Amino acid sequence: MKNVHSEAIDAVHYDSGAAKGVTGRVIIGQADGARNFCMRRFDLAPGGYTPRHTHAWEHEIFFHAGQGEVFSSGEWATVGPGHGVFVPGREEHQIRNAGSDPLTFVCLIPSGVPEI
Amino acid sequence: MKNVHSEAIDAVHYDSGAAKGVTGRVIIGQADGARNFCMRRFDLAPGGYTPRHTHAWEHEIFFHAGQGEVFSSGEWATVGPGHGVFVPGREEHQIRNAGSDPLTFVCLIPSGVPEI
Repeated sequence: MKNVHSEAIDAVHYDSGAAKGVTGRVIIGQADGARNFCMRRFDLAPGGYTPRHTHAWEHEIFFHAGQGEVFSSGEWATVGPGHGVFVPGREEHQIRNAGSDPLTFVCLIPSGVPEI
Repeated sequence: MKNVHSEAIDAVHYDSGAAKGVTGRVIIGQADGARNFCMRRFDLAPGGYTPRHTHAWEHEIFFHAGQGEVFSSGEWATVGPGHGVFVPGREEHQIRNAGSDPLTFVCLIPSGVPEI
């Protein structure tokens, strides 16, 4: 069993034009022997956002803390702690922080694609 | 895209001898078109616990709220909000609420096994 506080994991920071104020961590992945799917944690600083993009694989997302919005089909929908979001493969999506605290969520992907 | 607050989902309650005070919900599963893995939410009431059991598939767990303990290899380890736990397949495990508030976590499993 692996048991770790997700904030103790080494982080990758994204602050390109396409992404702003994003911190990402792989909580459970290939290195842990997880062969079917991968759990990542993302923290978006106030004003931060993920890229608006599309890819073949799905996301299964659980929102842990903060207030955010998710873009899908031309509209922004509100999300907060306890929300679950399923983004099917090939669907354009983006997440942004809509509050004044960090927006924290876990986002799971199938194995075989880049983990972070 | 599916966007739902996990508390709005129909719940299943477990209060057998092996499990106590457990509420379970499928947040994202086969019915949503999720073909690779399944996200469930579990809430354990104070004093509640999941069965101590073993099965072939893995768990990827993220703790959202409350204070708990996870059994593995003969010992109980502390978990709380932000903890991630990976239980490989065929490893005995159990989760219990160790606090006075509900213990809430998401637990993901591969597709092809019972969702809840």
